[in-house]
Amino acid sequence: MLPLQKPESHTMHIDLNSDLGEGYGPWAMGDDAAMLGLVSSANIACGGHASDPETMFHTLRLAAQNGVTVGAHPGYSDPLGFGRRVIPMAPAEVGRMVAAQIGSLQGVAALAGTRVAYVKPHGALANLAADDRAVADAIALAVKAISADLAILAISGTALEHAARAHAIAVYSEIFADRGYLPNGRLVPRSQPGAMIHDPEAAAARLLSFLESGLMPVVGGDPIPLAAQSICVHGDSPGAVAMARHIRAQLTAAGVTIAPFLP
Amino acid sequence: MLPLQKPESHTMHIDLNSDLGEGYGPWAMGDDAAMLGLVSSANIACGGHASDPETMFHTLRLAAQNGVTVGAHPGYSDPLGFGRRVIPMAPAEVGRMVAAQIGSLQGVAALAGTRVAYVKPHGALANLAADDRAVADAIALAVKAISADLAILAISGTALEHAARAHAIAVYSEIFADRGYLPNGRLVPRSQPGAMIHDPEAAAARLLSFLESGLMPVVGGDPIPLAAQSICVHGDSPGAVAMARHIRAQLTAAGVTIAPFLP
Amino acid sequence: MLPLQKPESHTMHIDLNSDLGEGYGPWAMGDDAAMLGLVSSANIACGGHASDPETMFHTLRLAAQNGVTVGAHPGYSDPLGFGRRVIPMAPAEVGRMVAAQIGSLQGVAALAGTRVAYVKPHGALANLAADDRAVADAIALAVKAISADLAILAISGTALEHAARAHAIAVYSEIFADRGYLPNGRLVPRSQPGAMIHDPEAAAARLLSFLESGLMPVVGGDPIPLAAQSICVHGDSPGAVAMARHIRAQLTAAGVTIAPFLP
Amino acid sequence: MLPLQKPESHTMHIDLNSDLGEGYGPWAMGDDAAMLGLVSSANIACGGHASDPETMFHTLRLAAQNGVTVGAHPGYSDPLGFGRRVIPMAPAEVGRMVAAQIGSLQGVAALAGTRVAYVKPHGALANLAADDRAVADAIALAVKAISADLAILAISGTALEHAARAHAIAVYSEIFADRGYLPNGRLVPRSQPGAMIHDPEAAAARLLSFLESGLMPVVGGDPIPLAAQSICVHGDSPGAVAMARHIRAQLTAAGVTIAPFLP
Repeated sequence: MLPLQKPESHTMHIDLNSDLGEGYGPWAMGDDAAMLGLVSSANIACGGHASDPETMFHTLRLAAQNGVTVGAHPGYSDPLGFGRRVIPMAPAEVGRMVAAQIGSLQGVAALAGTRVAYVKPHGALANLAADDRAVADAIALAVKAISADLAILAISGTALEHAARAHAIAVYSEIFADRGYLPNGRLVPRSQPGAMIHDPEAAAARLLSFLESGLMPVVGGDPIPLAAQSICVHGDSPGAVAMARHIRAQLTAAGVTIAPFLP
Repeated sequence: MLPLQKPESHTMHIDLNSDLGEGYGPWAMGDDAAMLGLVSSANIACGGHASDPETMFHTLRLAAQNGVTVGAHPGYSDPLGFGRRVIPMAPAEVGRMVAAQIGSLQGVAALAGTRVAYVKPHGALANLAADDRAVADAIALAVKAISADLAILAISGTALEHAARAHAIAVYSEIFADRGYLPNGRLVPRSQPGAMIHDPEAAAARLLSFLESGLMPVVGGDPIPLAAQSICVHGDSPGAVAMARHIRAQLTAAGVTIAPFLP
Repeated sequence: MLPLQKPESHTMHIDLNSDLGEGYGPWAMGDDAAMLGLVSSANIACGGHASDPETMFHTLRLAAQNGVTVGAHPGYSDPLGFGRRVIPMAPAEVGRMVAAQIGSLQGVAALAGTRVAYVKPHGALANLAADDRAVADAIALAVKAISADLAILAISGTALEHAARAHAIAVYSEIFADRGYLPNGRLVPRSQPGAMIHDPEAAAARLLSFLESGLMPVVGGDPIPLAAQSICVHGDSPGAVAMARHIRAQLTAAGVTIAPFLP
Repeated sequence: MLPLQKPESHTMHIDLNSDLGEGYGPWAMGDDAAMLGLVSSANIACGGHASDPETMFHTLRLAAQNGVTVGAHPGYSDPLGFGRRVIPMAPAEVGRMVAAQIGSLQGVAALAGTRVAYVKPHGALANLAADDRAVADAIALAVKAISADLAILAISGTALEHAARAHAIAVYSEIFADRGYLPNGRLVPRSQPGAMIHDPEAAAARLLSFLESGLMPVVGGDPIPLAAQSICVHGDSPGAVAMARHIRAQLTAAGVTIAPFLP
């Protein structure tokens, strides 16, 4: 766990990010157009767990039109599993898969008139990169080889965050708008009570409290310090847009500026 | 047809290119390792008609180790058809597909310690881009959007060559080592006599004659002037390596330097 | 065009069919559960243009639970194009692709406790099979080779209907609930006025009129006789469920029995 | 381990099986035509880890022409991993995947004028089904649901064999021509000495000794009794055809009849 980076009250701002561009050919996933009017950063699928050149292009275009910063959201090349299954691969193979996906999004971004600013792994790959330093290093090396300008968006305290720092890659932290936390800073597993926060009011109130105090309420303990430059809001669940809209409205009303964590 | 660019005898040099990296997962296509010891430029498949991140990486690595210049070889995203079928797509869709594929190869090339220097379309996409200016323009725009440093390798006189020039992209021309030509500069269709030159001796002799005179023998007519900075040798047919080896040996013995068309 | 098969008033019944099971992995398409409560026959995608074993299984299970007759809905193996693009293939290749897809659905149907009773091609493949007798014959031969018990659902007057009859395959005809017809019995192209009937009232009224008279109103002419044992209602457009529900209600209210065209 | 089924000397016969039809679109794997002249049973890939309708059809056709019995060879739907990676799936999902693949091969077999007689899982799926009874049961249930006439080819003593017996499915056992065995009847891991038998003479001698005695030599122990109605010869390694040809010749010369384990 990093030492607390407490937001100064006179400059209170935060990024809102969401996983977008997760359609596939004729199939949509969530309401990207609505979400891109609410978030400041978009993690866009790269043709691994989801997306294809058309989906990438139209999502990138919309992101550019909304002034939303773009991140690559690589995942296992497993659309049927939506990147939620660990596909057994050597870390070096993961690195090459991630490099191909980031490059692919960069190629389409060039056509869409925008650029990829950061990388945030998806699903089972993100979970593995949080715990497995060899996989985290492979991802970090791929990111760094592609461009010294790419940042990584990770969860504070994970192997991926450590790998990014070890390879001198700019790294930013996110918290989740609708997930409960444990006293050790990890997420409450989905199988346990308190894993999900479904009520937009409760989610917004918790986030405001965190932004003001730097302390995150947890299940079964005292609030803990967490570092975060971004809040992840889900884009594909029922009520996702309503949740994101409410959080944005409440934060803005409280004087928080919603702005990309990267300029 | 371009005006003849006659090679000066005192600086006689030419590029040899081949389509490589066309395996797919566990399946190989041709003997890439042998071919990369013979050619000066490699058109490497990008995960569209063939290849995957592992195949890209190992081919790029071998190319780098052999000092071979790398080109992207995008094709229709149709592995079962090996990119030899026209998949109905709007020109703009072709541009996005090509951008994703070039980007993908660039991403892996960064990890492999090399870079993509040019683009040469594959199979049915190449045939369409030779005739259809809208498709050629879409490809040219994708290339240019990705990098002002990328060149295009085309066949002299095609729509793709015209599109590259129109968009101020450096463009180079290739001839085929083992294909017969018609008086109009087009290839003899595979269904007709003289389409294929199977004899390495005959192929080498014809190429030497062309390099010395700038004139290409044709089926049913007098030799014609052709512009070429590169000779395409096939990498995946039986006898491909023997053909390439013989051509390289004969050209070298005649004082021709085999060198990339791009520095 | 076949001679009119006028429904007898004392046995007025008709089938309602819809294209279902067109999700793909995590991606849904339409509301299959609702549609399976409304139709009497379901054309279920087979892993070509859409679907996968999980999607097949759950759709087949729901169909069995609703007493809905199951048809295979093979299409080009092109999920990104949703089977709406003609992939260049020899007719014999189409036959093998269709055989593999029908077999695949049969395999999963066995596990789901139901069976495949008929075949209706999808999208671009259906359009081609309507016009190209060689493709229609290849599909018919695949159907017949797999089982003498499989029927074909086609559009009256098409090459596919002729091929089915020529190969002694039971063939049934469908009309479209929401598409306008031309005086020659073909559909009004989507680019022209009158192509789509968006109003459920108008669609139901037209179908009732057809069922009573055997004559279908057309754009720019007198009503024409059409043969039909089934009405195709769309499953994936906005308002699809409402349209199907209204049609079913209006037909039922008028004394028409909705029942599978196959027992 | 089953009790020894000692071959009677006056009826000494055995099946030779091989994994075939493992090409993919333009990519070949091994020399199927040669192997189909040597084996009596062919395990044919079904579009999961390898193959496609064209590859299935041509392999099935050749099998029929050679009088070779056909088995389905389902594997994880992971061509890039060639079915050698465990894709995390619930057992019921495995059953549906296997059902779809068997059905697919059956569909194409009908067109090719042959039929599928048995099922043998491939690669990582076979390994899992050997150890995990829930996965083995799911496969057995899929096989049984599709047809009461389908047999299973398994390794003696595995969970798959037990599952087949529990579900009253005819089950046959295989041994490997070129793999060393441990005293417990399992294969020597590929990382250890004695895992592979590369010498055709040694392989043939060992198989003859086994056929005569019912006892298999093992690494680090006395020969053990093994049940086997079939010998698996590899089809895709260098020297595969030579190995299979030598084994067939030596067995035949010793009076062993090579014949399918299923009539």
